[in-house]
Amino acid sequence: MPLFRGLAAYPITPADADGKVDVAALRRLVRRLVDAKVDSIGLLGSTGTYAYLARDERRRAIDAAVAEVGGAVPVMAGVGALRTDAAVALARDAKAAGAGAGLLAPVSYTPLTDEEVFVHFQTVAGESELPLCIYNNPGTTHFSFSPELEQRLSGVAGVVAVKNPAPASGVAAQLADLRGRVPEGFSLGWSGDANAAEALLAGGDAWHSVIAGLFPQAALALCRVAQTGDADEARRLNARLAPLWALFSDYGGGLRVIYAAATALGLVSTAPPRPILPLPLDAQTRVEAVVRDLELA
Amino acid sequence: MPLFRGLAAYPITPADADGKVDVAALRRLVRRLVDAKVDSIGLLGSTGTYAYLARDERRRAIDAAVAEVGGAVPVMAGVGALRTDAAVALARDAKAAGAGAGLLAPVSYTPLTDEEVFVHFQTVAGESELPLCIYNNPGTTHFSFSPELEQRLSGVAGVVAVKNPAPASGVAAQLADLRGRVPEGFSLGWSGDANAAEALLAGGDAWHSVIAGLFPQAALALCRVAQTGDADEARRLNARLAPLWALFSDYGGGLRVIYAAATALGLVSTAPPRPILPLPLDAQTRVEAVVRDLELA
Repeated sequence: MPLFRGLAAYPITPADADGKVDVAALRRLVRRLVDAKVDSIGLLGSTGTYAYLARDERRRAIDAAVAEVGGAVPVMAGVGALRTDAAVALARDAKAAGAGAGLLAPVSYTPLTDEEVFVHFQTVAGESELPLCIYNNPGTTHFSFSPELEQRLSGVAGVVAVKNPAPASGVAAQLADLRGRVPEGFSLGWSGDANAAEALLAGGDAWHSVIAGLFPQAALALCRVAQTGDADEARRLNARLAPLWALFSDYGGGLRVIYAAATALGLVSTAPPRPILPLPLDAQTRVEAVVRDLELA
Repeated sequence: MPLFRGLAAYPITPADADGKVDVAALRRLVRRLVDAKVDSIGLLGSTGTYAYLARDERRRAIDAAVAEVGGAVPVMAGVGALRTDAAVALARDAKAAGAGAGLLAPVSYTPLTDEEVFVHFQTVAGESELPLCIYNNPGTTHFSFSPELEQRLSGVAGVVAVKNPAPASGVAAQLADLRGRVPEGFSLGWSGDANAAEALLAGGDAWHSVIAGLFPQAALALCRVAQTGDADEARRLNARLAPLWALFSDYGGGLRVIYAAATALGLVSTAPPRPILPLPLDAQTRVEAVVRDLELA
């Protein structure tokens, strides 16, 4: 399976309170994904807390994951940073470490214009020569890509894919519109696990999945059914996961939930980076119950 | 004038393309503010691009400003960072360098909960012992402080002030509500230059001003009149600056406009940190015309 096709699994990046990556724990998480036969590994995504990790720790994480994967599947790595020169350096690091591609989000403090984001991507792609996926995640970056900007960026050498948040409805029309704007072979992928099934049924190229980073079997089952076009069965599997989507919705996204679930499964013993706090005890208990009831462990 | 009373002037932080601070240029900017007799210097605010500068460069900037000021007025320094441990380190640096207080914004990537922001502030205040101003700037941090959270934080030892964005209307009611929530002596200050006059007329303690960082006389004239309670004259002076407020509104805030104005005045020759781009030529021309017409130079 080439890059940016099928199921991309995004693991968390276990690290200590000082931001030092626990490479042994990371390798255990990555091993589970390789063994489950996901199509690619999305290292250092938003749930992988890339934004909170220093350059050398991000390099250590990529080195560890690439070593563990051993070429079995492609590894993509988040290379986003607030400064353009920092993103270039991270993209070069990722390429040197053996990542097959980079995920580039327009991390912002001062809100950015379309032109600024365009030049940022053009610079990182050109100076790193790492194939890039546009990482459109307005919930964290507070920048929203228009179809026009994605079209323009898809013409930049080295920009080969986009990861858009799957909408709650209307994904088929959005996908058809985008398909008409980008070159053949450009990957139109989707994040937002709760809405990803419909995006795949509509013909999306990839599901960039948070749950696949911890529950690869459940995500693979849904992904493979959706890829065959069996809408009824895909929707049934997706509906079965509704309690998980409710957790994501109730607790501010997937990150805190996935940490709680990974801890409950005994896979990691680390917390998210401060200021992000672990879920309170009652919420942790609820996460544990959902993981158990859905037999996700 | 004690900290967080009157006019706080926020200069830009001139730096080269690699993020190395031009301390000579910074000292020239700071000297103008001291000579104009602003009440305090707000170093490394949002327009001071703190978020884009490395720890050692932020330290160099504070060292240079404190040396230039020579104790004439208090220096506050932005100490915000994505990680709590990084913000603690920056606050300790600022204290060691002689800053009188820190401005702490809840910089976010993963959206933060109120509890997370509370613990973040409590930790930075407690571990640095630097007096802190809550920096409420939803336009950049994407976190909005409720009055209840500001009330709670005002009870934390070392949290001594807040800088809220001045609303376009209704500031008097907002101020009265906050005044009833915070301890006596807690500074209720305001950013958002276009609406600051009304906030001062309503009894606000401080105007945290972007324009004061480059045009201290114009800001001081408005501030002093508003402090006397002369509403008609304050509103006349504010209305005279309307073309400047229009630039801020049209060009995504003050940062790019202030860089263009500072360049037009020959005070700096540096651009904002990439990915932020200088204003396009037609906009620069418009900025120059406004600066000239308002006799701001």
